[in-house]
Amino acid sequence: MTLHLDDLRVRRLGECRYDSPFAEMLSTKQTSPHYVAEGDRVLLEDTVSMLSGHSLPPGRVPSFEAAGPRRKIYFDPADVTAGIVTCGGLCPGLNNVIRGIVQELAVHYKVKQILGFRNGLQGLTAAHRDDTVELTPERVRDIHNAGGTILGSSRGGQDADEMVDSLVVRGVDILFVIGGDGGMHAATFLSKAIRERGLDIAVIGVPKTIDNDLPFTDQSFGFQSAFARATDFISSVSVEAAASPNGVGIVKLMGRHSGFIASYAALAANAADIVLIPEIPFALGGDDGLLAHVERLVRSKGFVVIVLAEGAGQDLFEKHGLPQYNGRGTDASGNVRLGNIGELLKECITAHLTAVGLAPAMRYIDPSYAIRSIAANAYDSVYCLRLAHAAVHAAMAGRTDAAVARWRRRFVHVPLSLMISRRNQVDPDGDLWMSVLETTCQPAGFGSVPDRGELNRVP
Amino acid sequence: MTLHLDDLRVRRLGECRYDSPFAEMLSTKQTSPHYVAEGDRVLLEDTVSMLSGHSLPPGRVPSFEAAGPRRKIYFDPADVTAGIVTCGGLCPGLNNVIRGIVQELAVHYKVKQILGFRNGLQGLTAAHRDDTVELTPERVRDIHNAGGTILGSSRGGQDADEMVDSLVVRGVDILFVIGGDGGMHAATFLSKAIRERGLDIAVIGVPKTIDNDLPFTDQSFGFQSAFARATDFISSVSVEAAASPNGVGIVKLMGRHSGFIASYAALAANAADIVLIPEIPFALGGDDGLLAHVERLVRSKGFVVIVLAEGAGQDLFEKHGLPQYNGRGTDASGNVRLGNIGELLKECITAHLTAVGLAPAMRYIDPSYAIRSIAANAYDSVYCLRLAHAAVHAAMAGRTDAAVARWRRRFVHVPLSLMISRRNQVDPDGDLWMSVLETTCQPAGFGSVPDRGELNRVP
Amino acid sequence: MTLHLDDLRVRRLGECRYDSPFAEMLSTKQTSPHYVAEGDRVLLEDTVSMLSGHSLPPGRVPSFEAAGPRRKIYFDPADVTAGIVTCGGLCPGLNNVIRGIVQELAVHYKVKQILGFRNGLQGLTAAHRDDTVELTPERVRDIHNAGGTILGSSRGGQDADEMVDSLVVRGVDILFVIGGDGGMHAATFLSKAIRERGLDIAVIGVPKTIDNDLPFTDQSFGFQSAFARATDFISSVSVEAAASPNGVGIVKLMGRHSGFIASYAALAANAADIVLIPEIPFALGGDDGLLAHVERLVRSKGFVVIVLAEGAGQDLFEKHGLPQYNGRGTDASGNVRLGNIGELLKECITAHLTAVGLAPAMRYIDPSYAIRSIAANAYDSVYCLRLAHAAVHAAMAGRTDAAVARWRRRFVHVPLSLMISRRNQVDPDGDLWMSVLETTCQPAGFGSVPDRGELNRVP
Amino acid sequence: MTLHLDDLRVRRLGECRYDSPFAEMLSTKQTSPHYVAEGDRVLLEDTVSMLSGHSLPPGRVPSFEAAGPRRKIYFDPADVTAGIVTCGGLCPGLNNVIRGIVQELAVHYKVKQILGFRNGLQGLTAAHRDDTVELTPERVRDIHNAGGTILGSSRGGQDADEMVDSLVVRGVDILFVIGGDGGMHAATFLSKAIRERGLDIAVIGVPKTIDNDLPFTDQSFGFQSAFARATDFISSVSVEAAASPNGVGIVKLMGRHSGFIASYAALAANAADIVLIPEIPFALGGDDGLLAHVERLVRSKGFVVIVLAEGAGQDLFEKHGLPQYNGRGTDASGNVRLGNIGELLKECITAHLTAVGLAPAMRYIDPSYAIRSIAANAYDSVYCLRLAHAAVHAAMAGRTDAAVARWRRRFVHVPLSLMISRRNQVDPDGDLWMSVLETTCQPAGFGSVPDRGELNRVP
Repeated sequence: MTLHLDDLRVRRLGECRYDSPFAEMLSTKQTSPHYVAEGDRVLLEDTVSMLSGHSLPPGRVPSFEAAGPRRKIYFDPADVTAGIVTCGGLCPGLNNVIRGIVQELAVHYKVKQILGFRNGLQGLTAAHRDDTVELTPERVRDIHNAGGTILGSSRGGQDADEMVDSLVVRGVDILFVIGGDGGMHAATFLSKAIRERGLDIAVIGVPKTIDNDLPFTDQSFGFQSAFARATDFISSVSVEAAASPNGVGIVKLMGRHSGFIASYAALAANAADIVLIPEIPFALGGDDGLLAHVERLVRSKGFVVIVLAEGAGQDLFEKHGLPQYNGRGTDASGNVRLGNIGELLKECITAHLTAVGLAPAMRYIDPSYAIRSIAANAYDSVYCLRLAHAAVHAAMAGRTDAAVARWRRRFVHVPLSLMISRRNQVDPDGDLWMSVLETTCQPAGFGSVPDRGELNRVP
Repeated sequence: MTLHLDDLRVRRLGECRYDSPFAEMLSTKQTSPHYVAEGDRVLLEDTVSMLSGHSLPPGRVPSFEAAGPRRKIYFDPADVTAGIVTCGGLCPGLNNVIRGIVQELAVHYKVKQILGFRNGLQGLTAAHRDDTVELTPERVRDIHNAGGTILGSSRGGQDADEMVDSLVVRGVDILFVIGGDGGMHAATFLSKAIRERGLDIAVIGVPKTIDNDLPFTDQSFGFQSAFARATDFISSVSVEAAASPNGVGIVKLMGRHSGFIASYAALAANAADIVLIPEIPFALGGDDGLLAHVERLVRSKGFVVIVLAEGAGQDLFEKHGLPQYNGRGTDASGNVRLGNIGELLKECITAHLTAVGLAPAMRYIDPSYAIRSIAANAYDSVYCLRLAHAAVHAAMAGRTDAAVARWRRRFVHVPLSLMISRRNQVDPDGDLWMSVLETTCQPAGFGSVPDRGELNRVP
Repeated sequence: MTLHLDDLRVRRLGECRYDSPFAEMLSTKQTSPHYVAEGDRVLLEDTVSMLSGHSLPPGRVPSFEAAGPRRKIYFDPADVTAGIVTCGGLCPGLNNVIRGIVQELAVHYKVKQILGFRNGLQGLTAAHRDDTVELTPERVRDIHNAGGTILGSSRGGQDADEMVDSLVVRGVDILFVIGGDGGMHAATFLSKAIRERGLDIAVIGVPKTIDNDLPFTDQSFGFQSAFARATDFISSVSVEAAASPNGVGIVKLMGRHSGFIASYAALAANAADIVLIPEIPFALGGDDGLLAHVERLVRSKGFVVIVLAEGAGQDLFEKHGLPQYNGRGTDASGNVRLGNIGELLKECITAHLTAVGLAPAMRYIDPSYAIRSIAANAYDSVYCLRLAHAAVHAAMAGRTDAAVARWRRRFVHVPLSLMISRRNQVDPDGDLWMSVLETTCQPAGFGSVPDRGELNRVP
Repeated sequence: MTLHLDDLRVRRLGECRYDSPFAEMLSTKQTSPHYVAEGDRVLLEDTVSMLSGHSLPPGRVPSFEAAGPRRKIYFDPADVTAGIVTCGGLCPGLNNVIRGIVQELAVHYKVKQILGFRNGLQGLTAAHRDDTVELTPERVRDIHNAGGTILGSSRGGQDADEMVDSLVVRGVDILFVIGGDGGMHAATFLSKAIRERGLDIAVIGVPKTIDNDLPFTDQSFGFQSAFARATDFISSVSVEAAASPNGVGIVKLMGRHSGFIASYAALAANAADIVLIPEIPFALGGDDGLLAHVERLVRSKGFVVIVLAEGAGQDLFEKHGLPQYNGRGTDASGNVRLGNIGELLKECITAHLTAVGLAPAMRYIDPSYAIRSIAANAYDSVYCLRLAHAAVHAAMAGRTDAAVARWRRRFVHVPLSLMISRRNQVDPDGDLWMSVLETTCQPAGFGSVPDRGELNRVP
């Protein structure tokens, strides 16, 4: 899908007429005021060939609006009521983002009222819209030291009109939606309903995905904290497997559609022999299948360590007559329930190794909650803070129907529609996966498998 | 200084005639071989306005050669002897880089001999050239779990011709120099001497700087580990200062010319009231000087936390008649010895607060070695590994006189001459420093100070 | 069971005739030689009433022999071959104990040959007895930085005579058995077989139990590391539960017969509402049952956090018609397989809360391997080192059929027969459990339950 | 000094007439109420020979009163106002103790008013007595996650009568003094003044000493957290020293009179070659002096790591003509200022090694605040909580002029007078120091030194 400049433009509520409160802060002889130059934009692509492809004058090259404070802003801070909601599964850094938004709004823009809606979009329903948390700098001062979200979260959408009613009833001018794929969809519907009613409410999304599978984002916040923690569990099963005759260590990590956590954690731990991700299908049987490779490793080095993303190998359940591990239906966020590939591999590997006289000591672990509930690490703390600042600047400047993101190490504005248009995945031909192959020494593929295209459709 | 495409080209020893050993590894139907397309290059600049400025056809836009494996390579791996040397101060990740280089060379390119020269460039002198460590995958298997460098390090350069002699005597075809400003200079001199003698030896630099002050690098390896650790010490003095009447906590962090560690650590800890960096001069006295601001904070919130980079405020020593804290001469790397700004502030603040009846509980800490000696964190582990892979691919493809670096999240080749041409510093008008000001609520400057240009010359 | 002095005496192989090599080390004017006074013993009991009960002259009061170096030793170090074996499940500190034994034997007693038998008692069978690891100070220098055991481990016993044959064939004079209940039993059988054959081989046990359920031991090595790590998982489910409407967090921790890890981790995390341990039976139903209490907490504070030991509630499976969670048969160590109380509670609580209109967000985690595979923390590192030293001193002084342990903070010798005579459990009337009740505010019991005696028989 | 039973008795305010609120909590059929039996006491000594020495009937053997809840209590909880104050230097666990006391008082005894006096004993002066913090379970819920003390602290005593006035004015019935040597002295003076005025106020001390130098305490709270953290710094200088030619790493740790932190941290890190503590004097010069040993190690292994307690070698300053490093006068707590032994060694070792042609790379670090300001680890969290519970039970039962402590793993009451009667030190002839010698392989002493008795007087 080719993107044109117009696809990357962000909607604005109107003309910016108020002076930014930063004018004073920055007017010293040491620093000239740092405002974003309106005409400047961050390039979408990073290579010469991509650039060449466009054959466009620089002013028409696909590019994003840079985030940051503007000299003039759209809302009068004295009159603003802001709302914040966190949606979907936990992710390190949620509290840091909340804290950053609140501090920036209250301390620098002097916004007086900030409401925290509780338990995700459920907090924007008529039944719960009055049960908000008053957010002040004092209230959020230390919340970044804990994982989770002080606002609570939940999965599942709500009626857009009912949510807009809540914003109107509570007098909200700016809503910050911190959420994943579901949250970005909801923000899009909300924006549409607001626009249709002709309301003057800005909706700014802060994309959250522990799987790092949202597009137009270098790396999503919390991702580094998450894969760092995942590394510990790879070390754990590695220690276990190495200490047992025919030890087999398996760690199932997050990653419904994208194997980023599995890939990065495997590179960091540097202890995995095999990494399995949704982007690369694999076969169990056959001489070049997974089971034969596992057997060879157990024979040669005495044990094997496997890291897999939860979304890997989803085509295997019916094929191998193990439907009991298959998922059923969808969860509250509308995600298809995944089959339990960890349990399937555990059973198949145990059966195979036992059959060939290498009854294994099986060490399987699924750390799940233990990863996503931790506090943000130092890097993510900085990242979340700056992302939160960018979100506030965008909203105060009247941007709406937009997300803030980091692209090629620059903070930018991305239209919400783009955020839900595709998925970020590990490129099987790219250098990240190449490094995984180099480090694990696993073969580029296991056996004869169906075409990738069939398997990895974005549902 | 405007850079043209030719400034960014990397030197090559000659034509690549050997097949890459990766051909086989990657030829499966799952993954088409991942080789870098020779014509493709990574853009130097990231914004439309910078692009516009050039008025050039895409093929002439300033850009770097992408790093990664080539279809054809220059050296016959069967005949290669490689050498590795680590120079300068410790930095998290040195062992990871060594390990990554050794594994890539030995496992994938099947290089048989890899020599580790000991204790920095001293190991390349005639007296020490034979005292090398044999580096094998087995030897380096677990070294990434420890900080430091198994090869040892030292400061200071050596005679280039003597070092080239050592390479010839030991039959080295490829030398990897992992080092900072001093190491990159040495690698440049080495390359020049090699070229002058017409030798067929590749020199590849892996830039190392815990201060993040080398140019053309998104962030230097080890930087994230370092500032994460620094954060702990900010928390420590913050706890101390908060628990004492008139508590003053001061942490002196690394950063001779660049305040990156101080800025990032302060953002991550979110506990600092004042951040002082070399890029922003400040005055002590006067109503809008540092001392008055410290006094105001002690009066209003009861304590104050200051984070400073070691290179901050170097103009203050003589001015305030405290020459005893000033540095003298240069160290073995040729760096000017810095004055001890931490001790100076400690004394001046104590004197000032005591004079105004607020005798402080002073909590000053200089963690230095405790930061740079730690093992790399998960992120840096991955980064070092991939950087090491890139360095090996570059060398095997006959690139020389070049460094590997990460630019806009892509691994690229950078001419060594560029690596020593300038310094990466915190932009006082940029969004990083803006976030520091927003987070600390410190004023944009303290008092009347000399012009920045005078103070921050690259020596 | 009343213990008399004679029950606490440790067997000796014979008279100690060799001079200890420590004589020289310690003969300085700063320190008078530290040798254990033969006549001195560490009291079994710690209170006046226990002392009174005996009505014995001090010389007959039940007490243990103090561990430590003797002036005269039994074995001539120059002629000694030592063996080490690690048995049973992993536990933090195994490598530290191995390292401490090897260093003490090699460096101070100058023992020349130390054999590591591999994979537990399996390594002492005829088939594997020659596949040993040569243990030297150099080999073990850094092993304490990793969890697990470099020797490998396995469950299950072996034929005592075959194992004695292995010791004879390999010329082993001293065998150190680091193991749990199973390992201590094996060491006892080995000792008996050795004694019956009239062989001059010392067998010294180093008791290992991550559950802290071996007797005559203040706290078993690795226990503190383990419960510290367990604390992280309680925090994780607590964060998860608190962030969800009707959140229920459950952590299943180790503890087949003893709830020490669950109790200590719950006290340390200070986030648990309910702690369930094997020593205290509980009922699910009824007004004062567990389910009603869970419901009350969800209604009042919005979520609930439950910490349970794997051995808790083992009487509930049949009673509640949920036999699918029940265990079957025994594992390789002869332990009865436990029913999965975590899964049972997860299902029962979900059913109950759903039925009363509080459909829960269930957050269940079973960290298992992630706890036992970690490296020892600082405290356990010191403890393991000193325990290892004590084990070596005991063996060199000709003690056999004995374990080294820490009793009332003193290192002592305990007859192996005592080590397997009973189990250490949380005293429901003691101050540890009292502190758990005070901290969780849970009721002293849940519902009407069977008599404890029936449930907690030592199998 | 021989202690008799009467020395170990704790003072009581009067007869216990109120029912304990625990009666109800514990009256279930699962647990019989756990109350401390009045007649039972914990033995002072732990060996048979110490027991024999007394030749006393069991009832007269020196022993401590066991801590814990009593069936009857002295104060009517409904009428109690409690106060808490923290004194002296920071130590991990202070907030945990505060939290444990508040929760136990408020939740279980239903005490309604708990006052936190601020900034140590200064908070009990007339000028500050009204500036208290209201302590509630909600207020202290999360404070254990941070180091330091939410009440603030300070050094130095105050007038006892003025402090008693403050207690009377604020209606305090029970004062908890959490503090070190200075705090225990102050508590003693306070108790005396209260007794002289015939007031009905209980004073309970919770001994705090990061140096572990208070007597009658197995290990002081926070000690394990502290030495664990200290271990990191030993690893740091070890990495630094090992990576440099002639590397010398020196870590100066806390320990004015006692070398516990240095000894334990050195055992845990297992990287130190030399440990220097106040209890063992040493000489610098001579063939068997410290400098010659350092030189030998640099020659043989290439580097050396030294761990020292701040109080070590205090006799050396004048002797070596380096008075500039010597301390002067006393600090606010009345402690003699120590000479800076770290700086002295740094200078002497640099001079010596340079003179013999081994110019060292000196790596010296003094982590100080970075150790004492951390949060309590899991073990200390449990310990502090249980100690706090014991303190509350003691106070409610009318004990006064007493400290709570842990003795041979039992919580006991100790008269305050005993707490300040002596100092806990490392026994140069005991097994802890023996293990240090075994692990470091350092000689038992360095050179010819003055008699220990002269040097280590308790001032």
